[in-house]
Amino acid sequence: MSLPTKTQQWILNEKPYAEAVLEGENQTFKLVTTDIPALKDGEVLLKTVYLSNDPAQRGWISPYAIPGRLYMPPVEVGDVMKSMGIFRVVDSRSAAVEVGSLVNAVSGWTEYTVINAKDVVKITPQAGLPETHFLGALGLPGHTAYYGLTQIVKATSEDTVVVSGAAGAVGNIAIQIAKKMIGCKKVIGIAGTDEKCRWVEKLGADVCLNYKSASYKQDLEKETSDLVNVFFDNVAGEILDFMLTRMAKYGRVAACGAIANYNRDNDIIGIKNFYEVVYMRLQILGFINIDWFDHLPEVQALLADEWKKGKLVIGDENETVVDTSFKDIPRTWMLLFSGGNTGKLITKLQE
Amino acid sequence: MSLPTKTQQWILNEKPYAEAVLEGENQTFKLVTTDIPALKDGEVLLKTVYLSNDPAQRGWISPYAIPGRLYMPPVEVGDVMKSMGIFRVVDSRSAAVEVGSLVNAVSGWTEYTVINAKDVVKITPQAGLPETHFLGALGLPGHTAYYGLTQIVKATSEDTVVVSGAAGAVGNIAIQIAKKMIGCKKVIGIAGTDEKCRWVEKLGADVCLNYKSASYKQDLEKETSDLVNVFFDNVAGEILDFMLTRMAKYGRVAACGAIANYNRDNDIIGIKNFYEVVYMRLQILGFINIDWFDHLPEVQALLADEWKKGKLVIGDENETVVDTSFKDIPRTWMLLFSGGNTGKLITKLQE
Repeated sequence: MSLPTKTQQWILNEKPYAEAVLEGENQTFKLVTTDIPALKDGEVLLKTVYLSNDPAQRGWISPYAIPGRLYMPPVEVGDVMKSMGIFRVVDSRSAAVEVGSLVNAVSGWTEYTVINAKDVVKITPQAGLPETHFLGALGLPGHTAYYGLTQIVKATSEDTVVVSGAAGAVGNIAIQIAKKMIGCKKVIGIAGTDEKCRWVEKLGADVCLNYKSASYKQDLEKETSDLVNVFFDNVAGEILDFMLTRMAKYGRVAACGAIANYNRDNDIIGIKNFYEVVYMRLQILGFINIDWFDHLPEVQALLADEWKKGKLVIGDENETVVDTSFKDIPRTWMLLFSGGNTGKLITKLQE
Repeated sequence: MSLPTKTQQWILNEKPYAEAVLEGENQTFKLVTTDIPALKDGEVLLKTVYLSNDPAQRGWISPYAIPGRLYMPPVEVGDVMKSMGIFRVVDSRSAAVEVGSLVNAVSGWTEYTVINAKDVVKITPQAGLPETHFLGALGLPGHTAYYGLTQIVKATSEDTVVVSGAAGAVGNIAIQIAKKMIGCKKVIGIAGTDEKCRWVEKLGADVCLNYKSASYKQDLEKETSDLVNVFFDNVAGEILDFMLTRMAKYGRVAACGAIANYNRDNDIIGIKNFYEVVYMRLQILGFINIDWFDHLPEVQALLADEWKKGKLVIGDENETVVDTSFKDIPRTWMLLFSGGNTGKLITKLQE
């Protein structure tokens, strides 16, 4: 097979103030073709197989992003849109990385990537589990859920736990860890469709409520009549605001994400019930999994073990893998913000 | 002296949705006269000398107050408006409490109170300090500032600290404890007039900024160019929202009060920069001093000691004592919300 010399890439064309724009003059991303540089010693050439779709990517392209106040440098206009993914090594000038192996890396919306071999992590799928799980339950989302529940809010079997974005990549694992590993007293999910809610209940939630339902607030009040000790929040915005009124004294909020804010820089719905934080002595604890990155292999092993024992559901149903042509990468990514995924949203690049 | 048989009282007439209303049909408080019951064994009769004015009282009369979600039961329509204060014992059927002594208690806007002797705390002013300090620096405000800084956010000499409401009852002591006792690297106050700011700087703040100044945000950005590790927040609202953008990674917010919200149940300005909590891994820690109440005597002794050494400023300038007729009690209380006080706002009841 002859090696490629050119690659298509999606670069950032304009930073979006609200929802990303797919087409037209103000389009957020632009498709370009560029030369692939020759490999230097220690470098490898990767072909993109799967792309990870993460709400956090919205923050990296915000016009308000301030370098140093993100956990990664922002993506600037003209840069390739940054993304995590799973890649096939197609050429290598490193003894440590063989051609043909699968690796995890931070790259971008590009067909081919030249990268230092030190910056890739070889992945070895468990028998019976597809490699895509290294972007989902056995990757950063699973690690985030475990880190947040066990290290940040230190959930115990005494706790009633609510998880927002419960059908999302992190949320569905958080629900399972809370119920099946920690054995929390009551585990309540919040998601955006009845179908997702039934799935979250199948995963182990005592109940899951659809925040788009007319009776959502009353239902949540009823289900939390004994109040909530731990809120694992992927969403922020109105869902967090209302949840503050349902927290028990000394309740802990694991502030994992704020997807409600990411596409609405100018009309964010603010947190109005802040006085609850004072009156009820709440702790709101922001965290990012990279601060506990060293523990990733041990968490992967632990979660895989729980899966083998039949405790955790890790499988196709935790993922929405969207078969995508290169030109449709932005479109698949935007499913994140319209609730188009159940579990982890993964782009599978068509050959 | 013959003992009184009747007392004037301010009772709650209507729960206010916005700012309390002093006069007219919808007035928040109503003046009544009622009989004083005869003392039973173990009870004492108190005459009100000073009333404590606290932003938290606004929460106790909110129509949205939910019993069990306040640290005190709310005040209901028809109840005497609740208040802490300093009282003179004018009659006693308890061997433990002598007629003529001064006591601290939770009572209300009333000339006379019948109360169980167990619920009063005798106060013994330090030589050189007026008894009013048991409502200010040596009372709950000083205790709150010390508790928040040393136990909740655990401020150290490595920290840059910002205090909002810096000229208030709690804020002015927090500034002093941070700078003079903990020795924090940089201490920045936020207050509502230039005059208050200059006073806060005299107390030890490296700088104090007037949030009503046109250049406030730019000034705060400049003064916090190295970012902020600890924010001791008495205010919430827009000041907290902006401060979230100035916090350093792993910064801690001591959420002590939310006075910006108390009079505006329906048009609260929400926290919009919540994503900063996630990205910067901030901790927002709500607290109420009563959870550490056991330590009050030891904190009083410690602060009095620092005053004796000349380190802490505790004196007339920490208090705004307003000579008030009984009928003007609500009017004096409302100075809290118009920035009418420097340090602790205390009502001195005219004889």
